[in-house]
Parts: sequence; C-alpha cells; structure tokens
Amino acid sequence: MTTDTRPKRTAANCSIGGRRVRIAGCAKGAGMIHPNMATMLSFVVTDAAIAPRVLDRALREVVARTFNCITVDGDSSTNDTLLVLANGACGARTITQSSGADYAKFSAALEKVCHALALGIVADGEGATHVVEIEVRGAPSDAAAAQVARTISGSSLVKTALAGADPNWGRILAAAGRAGVPFNPDHAEIWLGGIKMYGPVARAPYSIALPLDERAAHRRLLKKNVLIVVDLHHGRGTARVWTCDFTQEYVHINASYRT
Amino acid sequence: MTTDTRPKRTAANCSIGGRRVRIAGCAKGAGMIHPNMATMLSFVVTDAAIAPRVLDRALREVVARTFNCITVDGDSSTNDTLLVLANGACGARTITQSSGADYAKFSAALEKVCHALALGIVADGEGATHVVEIEVRGAPSDAAAAQVARTISGSSLVKTALAGADPNWGRILAAAGRAGVPFNPDHAEIWLGGIKMYGPVARAPYSIALPLDERAAHRRLLKKNVLIVVDLHHGRGTARVWTCDFTQEYVHINASYRT
Repeated sequence: MTTDTRPKRTAANCSIGGRRVRIAGCAKGAGMIHPNMATMLSFVVTDAAIAPRVLDRALREVVARTFNCITVDGDSSTNDTLLVLANGACGARTITQSSGADYAKFSAALEKVCHALALGIVADGEGATHVVEIEVRGAPSDAAAAQVARTISGSSLVKTALAGADPNWGRILAAAGRAGVPFNPDHAEIWLGGIKMYGPVARAPYSIALPLDERAAHRRLLKKNVLIVVDLHHGRGTARVWTCDFTQEYVHINASYRT
Repeated sequence: MTTDTRPKRTAANCSIGGRRVRIAGCAKGAGMIHPNMATMLSFVVTDAAIAPRVLDRALREVVARTFNCITVDGDSSTNDTLLVLANGACGARTITQSSGADYAKFSAALEKVCHALALGIVADGEGATHVVEIEVRGAPSDAAAAQVARTISGSSLVKTALAGADPNWGRILAAAGRAGVPFNPDHAEIWLGGIKMYGPVARAPYSIALPLDERAAHRRLLKKNVLIVVDLHHGRGTARVWTCDFTQEYVHINASYRT
C-alpha cells in the first residue's frame, strides 16, 4: 500500500567542459520518513561520465544534507533505496576525483535534484499541510545544531502547533531545551514564520517573549511553507532540516487504513 | 491551561512493626509526558517514620520503574515535580536503612502508589483511548530492553495502529529493529493483546507471521488495556513501559486549543 498522493520528480543540469550533463530523479514515499531515510524509494539517473567511487562520494555528501535531513513521523523504515545510475552518454570528460570544479558543478546539480525530491516527500507527507524548514544556528558544533534541529522536527507538540498555525514559539524552545545540547535560554533567539518571537530587547539583558500580534502571526503560519530559525548564541554550528506538520489526517491514515 | 480530564489519586498501606503505615498520592498531567517525567505534578504523603536519605533512595528506585517508564507524546517538560513528604505520625519504628524487611515493605507500598499515579496519567493522556503496557524480554541487558520498549512506546505508527485497534505487529517489530539494540528478527517473538502474532513454528526454523484471525484480534484490541510483549531471544534483559494510543483527538487538543 502506498499513501503517496502525487509523483515526485525533478531534473537539473550542469556544464562540464562545455558539454551539458543532465540529472533526473524521482521518489516515492510519504510516511515512515525519518533520518536515515525511510520507506522511501528514489532513483536518480544522469548521463554524466563519473568514476563510480567519485559518484558514491558525491551522493553520500549530498544525502547527508538532503534525504537524511527530512522527517515526516519519526518512524524509519526497514527498506529504503536511493540509487544513482550514470551512463556517461553526455560525451563530457570523466569526473575522476572528488574535488575540483567539475566535481563541484556535478555535486551542486545532484544536490538540487536530491533536495527537490526530499522536500517533495515532506510536502507529500501523510496528512501534511505545511512544509517546515528548521534552521539552527549558534550551536557548539554542526552536529549539536543538527541534534537540536532534529529534536524540534520530531516534537509532536511543535508539529501539532504548526498544524493549527499556532505561533507557539514556547514549544520550539522547550524542544530545543531537551535536545541534550548546552545553551543558555537567556541568550537564545527564535523566529517563526519570519517573525522574531523570542530574544533580547534593549531594556532587558536577557531573552524574553517579544510583543506579538497573534492574529497576524497566525495568518502568516497559514502559508504552505514555514521557516523556523533558532539561534542558540552558544557557538558557530549550524544545521537545516525539513519536516511537515502533524495533522488529524495523519492519524486517520495510520489508524484506519484497513477500514 | 490543563488538559487533565479527571483527578488521579490513590493510596496504599503497609505494616511496619505491627503499626499501619499509610501512603497517599495525587498527580496532575496529561500531555508533555515522557521520561524523564514531564509536565507533571505529583504529591505523595505518608505517615511513615523514615530517614530522609532512605526515603530519597526508595523514591528514586520506585520512580525509575514508574514515572520514568511512561510516555504520552514524546515531549518532555521544563517543570516536573514529584514530592514525597513523610511526617512519622504512624508511631512505627523509623526506617533507617535502605535494605531489610521494613524498607522492602515501605518501598512496595510506595511503588503501588507511584505505579497507580503514573498509569493514571497515561490513562488520562491527551486524547488517549487505550493504556498500553509494553514488556520487552530477552534483550542483551535491562538497559537495552528499556531502549527497545521506549522506541516502541514512542512510535507514532505503533500508537496510531493502537488507536485503530489494528493488530499491526509489523510496526512493533520495525520499531524494535530501529532501537539500536542488536537482535535477530528470525528468533524474535511478538504477542499483541495476548495473541502471539510473530514467532517460530514447528515447520520453520525462523520466526514468521503466524496465522491470525484479524477480526478477533481487532475486537481484542478494542479493550481499554492492551499488552504488547516482545521477546528478542538475545539475552536476559527485561523492561516494562507504559504509553497510550495516538488519536485524532490528541492532534485536535494540541493544534486547536486556542480556538
């Protein structure tokens, strides 16, 4: 049984030695989506000429920033597949090392394809009505930033608030606080839907709930794409992950699919 | 704002040196419930005579098996409280050490109270229609068993299946498989609602999906209390945790509470 509601497919190009290199891909998946990947099938094809170990390296780097940065429901799968096939038919010179301009151009195009497919899966997440990007800055390390971002992206309370277009930055701060990464909430800042909701002000030496037009914020959060930015002000680590909201329809799909 | 729908209170007795010792407790909490504890307030009072450090020890042991073994929604809180107050008014001799018969009797009564309060919170979990006990056996260690049990108890797919009274043992096995504990699924066994659904049979040298009367299993899972038992056959570690199912009402409560 599949719960996908639409096909996910995309393509990108790059130029290697004056020749056009094409990359195209498609993906299937809507539930059981969580790093590392999930009940997901994705196939990417390219006419690039590239050494197998170099293609493998490029794919691993790209997957770390795309498919392994998405979550729908926190459940991961026993049977994920992402395949990249290159046939060399573009006629361009072979990319033989994982550095240099050719590799960078190919990698960027591959990332464009994988990013679009991964976000397509999130957008088609079971019951999803929003695509949510979570950016964490100012963490002790990139790994710590990812830990905070993933904890926020896995919080049922954050995801149900987003389903209700509720500007509940407190749930975001609470999720960050239990991620196991040290930071001082007195210095942290939170933006939700482009609106700064928590941070320091001139008259206070620490972060506070900022004045908020709740109705305007609610309207902003009704948009399909929602951006959450958390700055911990506790280092230079950054991370970005993507998730969707958690709706009654998700429960319906997974509780009642046999009936 | 509280989402509790009813009071949670209980009492237990034990006899120390012929004198009756009473313990009574109450708890508040329904959402943001996850080890270690959650948005939870619980107050336990006793007329036992017990040295403060012995009471502290008894409480920590009991909490590890009760309040810290429940989850409602995977979100934990910034402000949990469990207090135990003992006034010594029972007239029995003072319990001065954390061993021996007096300590054992008092601890057992305290566990009865904490167990009832913790399960009362799960039963009143936001939107909950079932109380689910998850027992894991045959793990490499008790800690590994707890890790598997908690992964199952935190799985949205397991919890939505339970909301639909769906005998979906595959989601339980999949959650166990991603818990990070080594075991061989060919030897594992799963019981759901008292029905063995996955395990070895005489004709097969490995575990398989056992013949199942799905309608009878569905009827069994409509009961308020549901037991899940997983035997990994990979050691002697055991653990028990409790959770509730994951319903559309949970999403409604947390997405729309302002409107």
